[in-house]
Amino acid sequence: MATVDYDEMWRVAHDLADAARSETLALFRAPGLTAESKSSDYDPVTEADRAAERAMRDVLAKQRPQDAILAEEYGNQAGTSGLTWVLDPIDGTRGYVAGTPTWGTLIALSDDSGPKLGIIDQPYINERFCGGGERADYMGPQGGGPLATRATTELSDAVVFTTFPEVGSAQERAGFEAVASQARLVRFGMDCYAYALVASGQVDLVIEAGLQPYDIQAPIAVVEAAGGVVTDWQGGSAAMGGRAVAASNPVIHAKALEILSRFAG
Amino acid sequence: MATVDYDEMWRVAHDLADAARSETLALFRAPGLTAESKSSDYDPVTEADRAAERAMRDVLAKQRPQDAILAEEYGNQAGTSGLTWVLDPIDGTRGYVAGTPTWGTLIALSDDSGPKLGIIDQPYINERFCGGGERADYMGPQGGGPLATRATTELSDAVVFTTFPEVGSAQERAGFEAVASQARLVRFGMDCYAYALVASGQVDLVIEAGLQPYDIQAPIAVVEAAGGVVTDWQGGSAAMGGRAVAASNPVIHAKALEILSRFAG
Repeated sequence: MATVDYDEMWRVAHDLADAARSETLALFRAPGLTAESKSSDYDPVTEADRAAERAMRDVLAKQRPQDAILAEEYGNQAGTSGLTWVLDPIDGTRGYVAGTPTWGTLIALSDDSGPKLGIIDQPYINERFCGGGERADYMGPQGGGPLATRATTELSDAVVFTTFPEVGSAQERAGFEAVASQARLVRFGMDCYAYALVASGQVDLVIEAGLQPYDIQAPIAVVEAAGGVVTDWQGGSAAMGGRAVAASNPVIHAKALEILSRFAG
Repeated sequence: MATVDYDEMWRVAHDLADAARSETLALFRAPGLTAESKSSDYDPVTEADRAAERAMRDVLAKQRPQDAILAEEYGNQAGTSGLTWVLDPIDGTRGYVAGTPTWGTLIALSDDSGPKLGIIDQPYINERFCGGGERADYMGPQGGGPLATRATTELSDAVVFTTFPEVGSAQERAGFEAVASQARLVRFGMDCYAYALVASGQVDLVIEAGLQPYDIQAPIAVVEAAGGVVTDWQGGSAAMGGRAVAASNPVIHAKALEILSRFAG
C-alpha cells in the first residue's frame, strides 16, 4: 500500500478536473460535434472525450510522471509509485452529445487496496463533489458544504437510481427490478450524477451493471467518504467494475444486497 | 384573439420566473423536505411547489389581475383580458425531491389560439429558455444566445427523448418504441429539459403522453419560436395536454407523426 500525500494529491486532482473542464466545456453543445461509434452499438466517442483525457495526461506527465494511468480513451500507462490515476474524461457521453447537463468527469487516485480519493466533476453545472483523505465536500452554483449520506433504513423509504433499462443483462435487470419494486421512488439515467446524489444525502441506492473501473472508482471514493457503502452485488469490491450497488448507509446496503446477490450468479 | 403587448408580457414572465426561483432554490435539497402523495401512485407535492406557485400568483395579482390563471397546485382563476397565464411551479417534482438538477419552472401566456410566449426556467443550473413574440433565446451559466432547432430529416439520425417508461399506456409505449427503434440515440427522463434541448438544436424529438396543459404550453412556445413543431399524436394542437410530439423541424415531425398516429386511436 503506497503512502499518499493528500495535500499534494488533492492539488493534482483539482488540476486534472480543471484541465478536463476547459476541453469539455469548449465543445459542449457545439454544432457538428461528431459522435463516432466504437462498436456496433451506438457508443459516441467525441473529440471532447479525447481532448479532455489528453489534457489530463499532460498534467500528470508534468506533475506525477511516477504514477500509473488507467483511462478510457488512450489506455493504460505503467508507473513506479504504486499509485494509479483512474480517469473517465466524460462519463455519460450519450448525454453529452444530446446536450444534457449531467455528464461529468471522473478522477480517482487508487492503490492496490482501492480508491484513496475521488472527484465527480460537473463542468456545465459548475459542481464538484470530492471525497477521500478525510475530505467529503462539494462546491456548486449555490455555494458549497459538506457531503453526508442519509440514514434511510427501509427499502420502502428509499430513492433508487439506475441507468437501466439501457445497461445490463435480463438477469441483471430482474435484480434491479426486485429492489426497485420495493422502493419509494425510482429514477433513471443520470450516469455519475446519481452517485453524487448518494453522497449528497438525496438518494439511497444506485444499482448498475456493465461498469468499467473508471466508471466506478471515483464514485466509490466520494460515496464512501460521505458515509456510504459501495460494493459489487455479492458484497465484494466494485473497484474493477462490473455490477455495483452504492448505498447511503450499511443498513440499506445490506437490504439491497440480500436481494441483488440472488441475481449475481 | 387578445392583443399581446410583448414588452410588458416578457417583463411579467421574467418576474414570475424570478419569484418562483427564490422559492424553489430555497428548499432544493433541503433536509426533510416533505413529499406528500396526491394520489395512490407516488406523486410528491412539496412545499416548494406550493410556495413557488403562491409567489407567482402574488406577482400576477399585482401586475396582471385582469388575466386568468391555469396552474398545477391551486387551480384555475378566471380573468377578463382573454389572456391566461399557464404555470407549472416545478415540472419534474420527482426529480426535484431526488435532488437532480433538471427540474424546471414552466410559464406560458396563452389566448384562445394557444401559447403566445413561454419560459422554461432551470433555477439550479441558472438557465432560462425563452420563446414567443419574435423572441427565441436563452441565458445560461456559460453565457447566452439565440435558440434554433436543427435540420435533421431522417429518423435514423435523430436523437429522441421521452419520459417513458414511467408515463403512458401500453399502446402509447408501443408508439414511442416504434419511433425510438429507428432513432440514432434515445434518452430518458429529463422532463421539461428535453424540450429546451429541442429548442437548443441538440435533440430532434420529444415524445410524451399523459400531459397536463401546464406541462406542455411553455414548451410549445419555446420550441415553436426556435423553429420546431409541437402537436398531439394526430397532428392537432397539443396545448390541452395528453399526448405530444415535439420535433426540431416539419420534416422529422411528419416522419414521427406517420408512426405515432397509428398508436393514437
